[in-house]
Amino acid sequence: MSKVRDKGEYHRQTSERMERHFTVPDWSARQKLALAGRILAAEGHDSGIAGQLSARADRPGTYYMLRFGLGLEEASPENLLLVDDDLNVLDGEGMPNPSNRFHLWVYRAKKRVNSIMHTHPPHVSALSMIGVPLAVSHMDTSLFHDDCAWLPHWPGTPIGDEEGRLISAAIGDKRAILLAHHGQLAACQSIEEATVLSVSIERAAKLQLLARSAGEIKAIDPELAREAHDYRLKERAIGATFYYFARRALRQDPDIGLFDAAPSRRIAAE
Amino acid sequence: MSKVRDKGEYHRQTSERMERHFTVPDWSARQKLALAGRILAAEGHDSGIAGQLSARADRPGTYYMLRFGLGLEEASPENLLLVDDDLNVLDGEGMPNPSNRFHLWVYRAKKRVNSIMHTHPPHVSALSMIGVPLAVSHMDTSLFHDDCAWLPHWPGTPIGDEEGRLISAAIGDKRAILLAHHGQLAACQSIEEATVLSVSIERAAKLQLLARSAGEIKAIDPELAREAHDYRLKERAIGATFYYFARRALRQDPDIGLFDAAPSRRIAAE
Amino acid sequence: MSKVRDKGEYHRQTSERMERHFTVPDWSARQKLALAGRILAAEGHDSGIAGQLSARADRPGTYYMLRFGLGLEEASPENLLLVDDDLNVLDGEGMPNPSNRFHLWVYRAKKRVNSIMHTHPPHVSALSMIGVPLAVSHMDTSLFHDDCAWLPHWPGTPIGDEEGRLISAAIGDKRAILLAHHGQLAACQSIEEATVLSVSIERAAKLQLLARSAGEIKAIDPELAREAHDYRLKERAIGATFYYFARRALRQDPDIGLFDAAPSRRIAAE
Amino acid sequence: MSKVRDKGEYHRQTSERMERHFTVPDWSARQKLALAGRILAAEGHDSGIAGQLSARADRPGTYYMLRFGLGLEEASPENLLLVDDDLNVLDGEGMPNPSNRFHLWVYRAKKRVNSIMHTHPPHVSALSMIGVPLAVSHMDTSLFHDDCAWLPHWPGTPIGDEEGRLISAAIGDKRAILLAHHGQLAACQSIEEATVLSVSIERAAKLQLLARSAGEIKAIDPELAREAHDYRLKERAIGATFYYFARRALRQDPDIGLFDAAPSRRIAAE
Repeated sequence: MSKVRDKGEYHRQTSERMERHFTVPDWSARQKLALAGRILAAEGHDSGIAGQLSARADRPGTYYMLRFGLGLEEASPENLLLVDDDLNVLDGEGMPNPSNRFHLWVYRAKKRVNSIMHTHPPHVSALSMIGVPLAVSHMDTSLFHDDCAWLPHWPGTPIGDEEGRLISAAIGDKRAILLAHHGQLAACQSIEEATVLSVSIERAAKLQLLARSAGEIKAIDPELAREAHDYRLKERAIGATFYYFARRALRQDPDIGLFDAAPSRRIAAE
Repeated sequence: MSKVRDKGEYHRQTSERMERHFTVPDWSARQKLALAGRILAAEGHDSGIAGQLSARADRPGTYYMLRFGLGLEEASPENLLLVDDDLNVLDGEGMPNPSNRFHLWVYRAKKRVNSIMHTHPPHVSALSMIGVPLAVSHMDTSLFHDDCAWLPHWPGTPIGDEEGRLISAAIGDKRAILLAHHGQLAACQSIEEATVLSVSIERAAKLQLLARSAGEIKAIDPELAREAHDYRLKERAIGATFYYFARRALRQDPDIGLFDAAPSRRIAAE
Repeated sequence: MSKVRDKGEYHRQTSERMERHFTVPDWSARQKLALAGRILAAEGHDSGIAGQLSARADRPGTYYMLRFGLGLEEASPENLLLVDDDLNVLDGEGMPNPSNRFHLWVYRAKKRVNSIMHTHPPHVSALSMIGVPLAVSHMDTSLFHDDCAWLPHWPGTPIGDEEGRLISAAIGDKRAILLAHHGQLAACQSIEEATVLSVSIERAAKLQLLARSAGEIKAIDPELAREAHDYRLKERAIGATFYYFARRALRQDPDIGLFDAAPSRRIAAE
Repeated sequence: MSKVRDKGEYHRQTSERMERHFTVPDWSARQKLALAGRILAAEGHDSGIAGQLSARADRPGTYYMLRFGLGLEEASPENLLLVDDDLNVLDGEGMPNPSNRFHLWVYRAKKRVNSIMHTHPPHVSALSMIGVPLAVSHMDTSLFHDDCAWLPHWPGTPIGDEEGRLISAAIGDKRAILLAHHGQLAACQSIEEATVLSVSIERAAKLQLLARSAGEIKAIDPELAREAHDYRLKERAIGATFYYFARRALRQDPDIGLFDAAPSRRIAAE
């Protein structure tokens, strides 16, 4: 029988092992954003042509965005737009979603943010209608412990500057925000993190609705929630989760040729 | 940093950009109606052989309708029926759904209506059983702000003239109606609009049921709802949304050859 | 504008038109039972290897049944069993589900019954746990108006004779029954009718659960419900609905070759 | 008409017939564990890279586990890890999930346990948030009658020894446990049983949530529940159910070639 050890030792061991084993392909921002679109589509984030993904591009004040009019699963590295800080197109065909104006406000105000994903998936949307913040009461949703803001006021069609200012202020230093009568926003340090948080907040909202329909949600210990939050947000864990979601998207997508090689064989083999 | 502008300026800019970038294929009414059938089937609107789509044909007093007995996803440009104002078949094999008689009453009474879609999807159906109108409390459902009527009385099997008169009167000048114990009806200026509204009302009903099962729905500001309603119903935005749904249907359908060319490459390239 | 007519005239017209246009392939009982299995599987009726379909065979006191251990979607005309009135296998490999003993009790007691389908789909199952009968409050569920019995007592594992007697008595002269803590049973004059009722009762249970989670179900006028019940249960309408579900199952099934010809082209062409 | 017999006689007959007819392929532990991963993925047990399956390997104190970072559906006989009693990898590439440490505690304490499956599917997860144990009120969920423990306390990220001790003690001599704010664990005598119980507990949780959202769950007779529990847990019935789920997984999986022969033709033919 193995000996009993302090939990801190296991945390250190886990970090060390993840560092060694959780390698991921060297995808470009364009590739990762396109993958994010397909991942979110597969997770039910479609709401017609609403919802938008973006990421900082190399030149300061420029951003990659999906072309307005395309669905999330239609994003490809080639059809993304490069836009400036006023939503003018620098490279690509078409127009960005005018609602991306509020993305700009967040990017300007938060140096830490390199990617924003904003969607209206069904459970987040339903939750956003009943005037309560996101509940964090499960191991898997601990990602949002003290890390999901709540804007109870709906400012209307978010194509103006006032909406950008309001949303940007409301998110503060948190990674995510639930927008009343509207949807979710993940504003993160990487495309991978924004994707995983977007997938997770819809799942969290689903759990919350299911739980509330059947009973009363019990609180969890905030200290344990913090520990789980940090464990789940380790950069390597986020990267491995994104990579798994990406492999799944690539397996379902006939355009898999857009991405080089067979990524599902490369994990831990690089 | 970009300057702060008035929101009206952004609305004008958005309209101008949509006009330029949101082009769509030049599909015939038959093609669009068949696409609508496949779109609605993919969105879960099937209820056996109930539910019907129709559109005005070129000659006044004639209409395209699905053949009764076919499922929504079986519609094709070739198997649609052309019927007269008394449901007699002018062109095609088979019979129309006798419930389409109430479509005729709406067409006669409303010059503005060029297409009607009537379906019994599950969330609309469940909502129709509990005696409440459609709730509009979300950005995406603002399409229905002051634009969805409610018939609280069920007139029974709607194959007669009395049912047609009743439903036609109840919808008034609105684009949509929730029919108690029955389903939804979208009566719109175009096939595209009727399709997008039919997809949207089922999603709205789903949000409403989810939200009500978990809490109390909060109201939104009617003025902002009106702004969002008008924004979402711009003809170009409806067209682009229909076109996206159509591409998705065509990707899933083995009979894609029925429609010329590869539409997913044509957006903004025409 | 067309003239206004009495609704009885439209009912007669509809019956006459259905008689002329709603033709179906001439499938054998084995083929229809296999199709029913695939239809019910696609509608979510799977509950592991529980649930069973059966039909009278040509020789009195003999029945076709699925082989126990196969899933609903694995049924084929070739792998069905022919059993006698004591569940002994007369033709085929394997054993019938011992729970089919209660089918035998129903067949013996009801000359009108030629096919029985018994499944445990999720919404029927959940509804069966809360002590309420099936609610009929929608056009589409009017099939069950005064035609769905309710056994509030659960007799346990239904492999014995006592269970057969109890269930057989409870269904009386109705086409369907909701079995508490267990599932649904459709005991009908044809395989087509039993299939359509099985699909419909799961949908009805889903509507009922959704509606109850969000509000209070409103009653419908019993006279109108009766009219709709009779309209929906017309033999030609049931046949056309079964045929549509069958085409859908055949389109999704790689073993389509088991059934001759391309049925989706034959409607109204025979 | 067949004679009426005692139910005990039918139970004996059923056992004898299952013994004769319910044969299954001779799959290895690696093959069965990979199949279990695909079965659970198809049943919605994915929660990113969380959730883990394991089984005892031949040498005492060694175990097969999925590689951390792979999704459930990516498991294959070749990519499983062989680890020792301290989670060190003896054979294979990568690392096990550090949360599998609590599996080790269960294996050490329970000689009867040969396979453990731990997942966070959505309905189990939602149920785990509202402070109630699993309800057993349906024929199909009788598997869990007096056989599902309940840990109302969440010990946090379960990578340490204390968590292992707690969970191991809480499960006692039961086959399953609902872990508050976390998920489910099936600790069984075989991979087949752990798989079937994992599929079943998520279905049971779904029924419970649906039922609670719509009404009050009625209790069932404990003696009948015990009879159904034993009937459903017959080794041959579990084996046949696993085999059915496996065939379904293999039909949906392009890598079917990993497993020899066409299993769907072998049932009862061996």
